[in-house]
Amino acid sequence: MRRIDSQETQHWERFYRANFFNSLGGYKSANLIGTRSKEGLENLALFFSVIHVGANPPLLGMLFRPHTVPRHTLENIRETGWFSVNSVQEDWLEKAHQCSAKYPRNTSEFEAVGLKAVYENDIPVPFVEESALRYACSFQEEHLISANQTIFLVGQVEAIFVLPEMLIETGHLNHPLVKTVAINALDRYYRAEEVAQLPFAEP
Amino acid sequence: MRRIDSQETQHWERFYRANFFNSLGGYKSANLIGTRSKEGLENLALFFSVIHVGANPPLLGMLFRPHTVPRHTLENIRETGWFSVNSVQEDWLEKAHQCSAKYPRNTSEFEAVGLKAVYENDIPVPFVEESALRYACSFQEEHLISANQTIFLVGQVEAIFVLPEMLIETGHLNHPLVKTVAINALDRYYRAEEVAQLPFAEP
Repeated sequence: MRRIDSQETQHWERFYRANFFNSLGGYKSANLIGTRSKEGLENLALFFSVIHVGANPPLLGMLFRPHTVPRHTLENIRETGWFSVNSVQEDWLEKAHQCSAKYPRNTSEFEAVGLKAVYENDIPVPFVEESALRYACSFQEEHLISANQTIFLVGQVEAIFVLPEMLIETGHLNHPLVKTVAINALDRYYRAEEVAQLPFAEP
Repeated sequence: MRRIDSQETQHWERFYRANFFNSLGGYKSANLIGTRSKEGLENLALFFSVIHVGANPPLLGMLFRPHTVPRHTLENIRETGWFSVNSVQEDWLEKAHQCSAKYPRNTSEFEAVGLKAVYENDIPVPFVEESALRYACSFQEEHLISANQTIFLVGQVEAIFVLPEMLIETGHLNHPLVKTVAINALDRYYRAEEVAQLPFAEP
């Protein structure tokens, strides 16, 4: 095994270091977060940090970069208390990735990348029509990470919209069926093939 | 699309609901967290919540379940200030999954499931010898999530041990080469096949 001490990585070229540390954890989910400002401006942003926080109540968490960069998504969530999470599928992956470009606040990523915004009548944020699995979340709490000024935000899942054929009788959602993608680092996307479903482990 | 309101899911059978909400976010990484208590008892636990928090300094985050269940990993991290993260590969996946069984605190999961603990001389926690990518982290901070009493913990990556052939010239780590697995929900494991590496997005 090759040993790399973190002190050594401080001297690495910035993008090389970012690729390396973003690769370290393994595969991540790719989700588009849909929001709307008080004034009605739509925003759509790509996140790789959505994690499960709990099933009852249904909670998820995600990480936001420091205040030093524009964070339209976070500002919109603070303003309205809502966001949508939209699972990314292979057949419209390029459009989803394009949402990671830094558009000015008055540009809707939906229009800029060519994805369709859809609304449900009781929910104040846009969903991505192309997504096979999308859900509305309400803001619950945020935590400032002292180590680097990022923010861990927790939301509660309020309503889910899913292609009926994705629902499996065990409660699982069939992501391979609709070709949901996984990501590693910031730019490498993957198709997943099931290798095992393992039974609940007992000692 | 089928609509499911979260209120409705409160009445679902517990495991069905857990499968559903654990599936929602998409594919996650599978990592074994290695720790050691003050008394020298080794522990190895499977986590699906490791996310990237920052590259400089190199930080990661992970979620711990509520105080109502035993949390040997968290207790050990608090005691010693250290943990190891060990990426899971397909050829020893069953052993990794078996670490999710609830063993008593005085049982080492390394011995129980048949994985080999290895040590580096300056690092006080065990690594999984079978893992192609393993790294030592120091405890930085923890945040109590009010909504369900889970804990989001942040660690700093201090030293990485990696199979040299995993390192790509861009700084990425070649997870498909060593067959790192992804997971969805708590029991479905996946092999990943690259579908695209997309350029840095510009407006």
